[in-house]
Amino acid sequence: MNFASDNAAGIAPQILAAISRANAGAALAYGHDAWTRRVETRFAEIFARDVAVFLVPTGTAANALALAHLTPPWGAVLCHHEAHIATDECGAPEFFGGGIKLVGLAGQAGKIAPETLRRALEAGPWGGPHHVSPAVLSLSQATEAGTIYRPDEIRELAEIAHACGLALHLDGARIGNAIARMNASPAQATWMAGVDALSFGATKGGALAAEAVVFFDPARAANMSERRKRGGHLISKHRFLAAQIEAYLADDLWLELARHANAMADRLAAGLAAADLVPVWPVEANEVFVALPSRVDVRLKAAGASYHPWTTDASNGVAPPRDATLVRLVTSFATTADEVDRFVAVARAF
Amino acid sequence: MNFASDNAAGIAPQILAAISRANAGAALAYGHDAWTRRVETRFAEIFARDVAVFLVPTGTAANALALAHLTPPWGAVLCHHEAHIATDECGAPEFFGGGIKLVGLAGQAGKIAPETLRRALEAGPWGGPHHVSPAVLSLSQATEAGTIYRPDEIRELAEIAHACGLALHLDGARIGNAIARMNASPAQATWMAGVDALSFGATKGGALAAEAVVFFDPARAANMSERRKRGGHLISKHRFLAAQIEAYLADDLWLELARHANAMADRLAAGLAAADLVPVWPVEANEVFVALPSRVDVRLKAAGASYHPWTTDASNGVAPPRDATLVRLVTSFATTADEVDRFVAVARAF
Amino acid sequence: MNFASDNAAGIAPQILAAISRANAGAALAYGHDAWTRRVETRFAEIFARDVAVFLVPTGTAANALALAHLTPPWGAVLCHHEAHIATDECGAPEFFGGGIKLVGLAGQAGKIAPETLRRALEAGPWGGPHHVSPAVLSLSQATEAGTIYRPDEIRELAEIAHACGLALHLDGARIGNAIARMNASPAQATWMAGVDALSFGATKGGALAAEAVVFFDPARAANMSERRKRGGHLISKHRFLAAQIEAYLADDLWLELARHANAMADRLAAGLAAADLVPVWPVEANEVFVALPSRVDVRLKAAGASYHPWTTDASNGVAPPRDATLVRLVTSFATTADEVDRFVAVARAF
Amino acid sequence: MNFASDNAAGIAPQILAAISRANAGAALAYGHDAWTRRVETRFAEIFARDVAVFLVPTGTAANALALAHLTPPWGAVLCHHEAHIATDECGAPEFFGGGIKLVGLAGQAGKIAPETLRRALEAGPWGGPHHVSPAVLSLSQATEAGTIYRPDEIRELAEIAHACGLALHLDGARIGNAIARMNASPAQATWMAGVDALSFGATKGGALAAEAVVFFDPARAANMSERRKRGGHLISKHRFLAAQIEAYLADDLWLELARHANAMADRLAAGLAAADLVPVWPVEANEVFVALPSRVDVRLKAAGASYHPWTTDASNGVAPPRDATLVRLVTSFATTADEVDRFVAVARAF
Repeated sequence: MNFASDNAAGIAPQILAAISRANAGAALAYGHDAWTRRVETRFAEIFARDVAVFLVPTGTAANALALAHLTPPWGAVLCHHEAHIATDECGAPEFFGGGIKLVGLAGQAGKIAPETLRRALEAGPWGGPHHVSPAVLSLSQATEAGTIYRPDEIRELAEIAHACGLALHLDGARIGNAIARMNASPAQATWMAGVDALSFGATKGGALAAEAVVFFDPARAANMSERRKRGGHLISKHRFLAAQIEAYLADDLWLELARHANAMADRLAAGLAAADLVPVWPVEANEVFVALPSRVDVRLKAAGASYHPWTTDASNGVAPPRDATLVRLVTSFATTADEVDRFVAVARAF
Repeated sequence: MNFASDNAAGIAPQILAAISRANAGAALAYGHDAWTRRVETRFAEIFARDVAVFLVPTGTAANALALAHLTPPWGAVLCHHEAHIATDECGAPEFFGGGIKLVGLAGQAGKIAPETLRRALEAGPWGGPHHVSPAVLSLSQATEAGTIYRPDEIRELAEIAHACGLALHLDGARIGNAIARMNASPAQATWMAGVDALSFGATKGGALAAEAVVFFDPARAANMSERRKRGGHLISKHRFLAAQIEAYLADDLWLELARHANAMADRLAAGLAAADLVPVWPVEANEVFVALPSRVDVRLKAAGASYHPWTTDASNGVAPPRDATLVRLVTSFATTADEVDRFVAVARAF
Repeated sequence: MNFASDNAAGIAPQILAAISRANAGAALAYGHDAWTRRVETRFAEIFARDVAVFLVPTGTAANALALAHLTPPWGAVLCHHEAHIATDECGAPEFFGGGIKLVGLAGQAGKIAPETLRRALEAGPWGGPHHVSPAVLSLSQATEAGTIYRPDEIRELAEIAHACGLALHLDGARIGNAIARMNASPAQATWMAGVDALSFGATKGGALAAEAVVFFDPARAANMSERRKRGGHLISKHRFLAAQIEAYLADDLWLELARHANAMADRLAAGLAAADLVPVWPVEANEVFVALPSRVDVRLKAAGASYHPWTTDASNGVAPPRDATLVRLVTSFATTADEVDRFVAVARAF
Repeated sequence: MNFASDNAAGIAPQILAAISRANAGAALAYGHDAWTRRVETRFAEIFARDVAVFLVPTGTAANALALAHLTPPWGAVLCHHEAHIATDECGAPEFFGGGIKLVGLAGQAGKIAPETLRRALEAGPWGGPHHVSPAVLSLSQATEAGTIYRPDEIRELAEIAHACGLALHLDGARIGNAIARMNASPAQATWMAGVDALSFGATKGGALAAEAVVFFDPARAANMSERRKRGGHLISKHRFLAAQIEAYLADDLWLELARHANAMADRLAAGLAAADLVPVWPVEANEVFVALPSRVDVRLKAAGASYHPWTTDASNGVAPPRDATLVRLVTSFATTADEVDRFVAVARAF
């Protein structure tokens, strides 16, 4: 019963098979290979426009490289104050950006409200030489609270951001889960809603280690290849990175895997709710956040369930539970209905 | 009627005279001169212990160099969320620190309460590899709100900080004003209360451009001279930097000048209070913050008064005034009682 | 006929199989897994001492992280002026090190002579505050010229370096090829000869993407996990990184694969020499450098051979060939005797 | 007899007087003052075109900020291998530039020959993603060897640099000495010869601590004020920085002071040559380099002369003297003919 992380899941069989298939003969290193070319073409198809794509091995690399590329050293990235980039990457964006500043905004259920963004940009103080200049708005999709931004929500935030000269970045570590949930195409969920750059996650979705930075305006990507290389993120046997993504994108496998993970989260949420353990935030991707009474917590742990406690504060819309632990339960492409049902059964047992 | 900034004042005559006196003959560059040696000795006397001292031309340099020296790149500096280092130095600490993170804490009247610090250190998440590690607590003395930390207040914060492995840094751009106000020696107000490093300001107090980073444990200063040099902050004709500080410290001129500035602030506060313009925060140094009704504001501007509006929020203990502007009035060694009285007269005129 | 790079080879079958085997069930992310523990133990066995090990996906990451960890921002890394870290990593060590300086030393056949190191350290100017301080000597093993340092050669350089306070780093992108060639154990070839830190390469040797930074004194590794994370180099599904290395180290596969690659290089060198195409540097690992007359170059390219030209200068002991191109021919675990023989046959054809 | 450094001289009386004069009343901080406006206008006059000017307190700051502004993090600065930026600034350009690389070129008498630059740009390897990209050619004017580049020499180098996309930076710590020696206007010696940015030195020429970064194309200066601020180099009481430069530029004082220093160097060189102590490089600014036999060295030191030994190598055109020490003798605006004559007298005494 693994609900600790979608990173705890293994490799989707189709992706592992693609790695094996790619292991035939020699191929030029550093991206001068056919797999990489095909992936670039495939991304353009999926997003229905020319894009510049850079494959990297980790989500932190994707985020830090993208943010550093969009933000001058004297710039600021605005994000939810509990965003992964702000709390879980050990200062990677600050390091890659040469000392940029991340400015955290409050917001319920992991989401930034347009009014909050508007007020932050008005309040300041912003601007040189004394103050940093806001350069990027970064949204997590899905959010750290397992919720998602709908295209019109993104568009409203993008309009505010763009009007003030900020670029819009999407940390899409779980972009597949978000898009699978929406009635929107990848294009509609990103650049058509105003997104300028995307960290496209594949690892949590089922890859071994493969992410992509996607610039929807290729001109913005100038010199990104140098930035990636000096960050140590240009994989030499690049075909194996590309092969993972190629398989992930083929026949919309990414959406199929995400739909499964989402469905497992729904099943888990429904089961827990039936046991009066109602998720604290809407379940819109593959994460369920719930306050477990300590006896339930003990029972689940004893039964071998794996999951992590979650820290948040009132500004996220959740009153810290008394005598209960807020926990995060993450499903993945590999989660089975049986695992979910067993978890629920243990949770509701009296 | 200059109340815009203590940086708008000129050079105290005694300091200007010292620069002139130092201009006799040649002296080795880069600090290999007698003035620098004497200043080092003088700092040791004033603080009643061995210290390591590094002179630099600006307060931002002093802060950024000190913080970078005390914080590893994966570290965090905790400070009041309206601290100068966090809001007015365009990311200098982040730049010098290789991408460190400044974490702002709320607190009324510009001060961090012990309980706030304690909760922040408990709440986290802190610590590697995913989260940054708290490395420094930085207090502004006097604060951005013109208030001061008494030695026992510093000690309480220092104990919490030290218990968690943080060093304590004091941004003493207005340290003279703070100490002049207290019934405490420089030693009592700093290292005896737990301060590890101090940005000792002289510029706002009356120098041309001279600040000092003081490490109370000289061992912590190892390689600081390299850090200063590669920051471009090793002044070549160093005797003129040292001569400023020497004059500033001689016969406790720094405290005498600060006492005058503080007295002018008191006089201003009293005069305004008598006109029902009560300062929003206690006047403990050389700054008076007051909400000016717009007609008063207009009148003062018309009379040639120079001052700046001030931005703050409710967490600083001030409800944003309606139809009034919160302004900051700064006095200096050069402020005259006549200037203060004229300002008050215009402000209270009906 | 791929002689372009050992990075152009695929994944060794044993390593690919290990990735597949590791793909069973869930495992905690970020290195909290059994594979990682076993790899750490295995490294300690191989090097016959306690070591601190950090797995990363690229050689540039391994080098840059190791060098940044051993060098203060005001420090210098001394290396051969044609070392990979100096010429082929787009400034990664400088970036990770916060602006450190790489100082290139000349040396024939890719190797630094003890006398050259001694003179460089004596000549200077070195040391603060004006000059950077030498902090690390970095040797490439095997070198960029396909030669190797014998343990006693390393020891002599290490003694000079250590006497001046420098740490000794080995860029071991091809450490397997070097050790396979020597009559020395991994311990004898590294820490027993004075090496302090090693970038242990596995990718060129047969992995998908896996390298390790090995500190022979674990105390030197403090906070390396934070540095790795904020560099974006902490792989989330870490078991697959560890599984690669585990398979690579099992039953000395790494040395077996390297021995094959080396043997293919020897065969290639012998074949070319018999055709009067004598390698310009001793063939001691898996690289052969030879000056190809242009008609031979044209013929080989026409026959489908893949290889790259190589730039060097007289200080490397090679007079730039007239009407010939210096090329680098790299063999790998995947090179076949047939490939070698066909290449030689085309090269010698009249 | 101070010949140690022009930094060992004090402040020119006219400049000290200007500081005093500026010390009347209040003036807004951070450059919002009349002195700064006048200096900007004056620079435009002197260079006969619109320029963007940024005053800073040190030459290292001027160089590091200028180079960081002209060079992307993956860029390289080409300079003479004994240039001050490469050897005497403790890695400041690398730090400010986010890990840029300085590439040293050999050249006799401190100068880079056009052919050397051409070959360096052709040889490479240059360019991403693997190699850094040459971004700036930085020339020292006067050079570290006390020689100067004539306008046509600069133009030839500029053409090569510009053709490859490099900007041309001049480290003008002694630009006054260089221009005073030439039959050329400031415009002819800089932008008309292809210079893009200039570190205009005033400190060595007679200021307390004042330098300027001058961009000849103001568009290139965008955001330089943020870069200066976060480097800690925005002086708060900015009028005193501007007042120094204003006085230095008034009535061409800078050239008058430089002419005197140059004349003293000529007198010194002639006197020493008459004693068979011929300078090793042409004396074209205010520095004389001469190999002193040890008995002469001892005698001069005993007589109280102050000067420093100088390290160079054969690539600078000087065979290391046997039983003699190469020394640098620097004159300044404050050097007297009497000092020079006494030095020469001691040097030639038998």
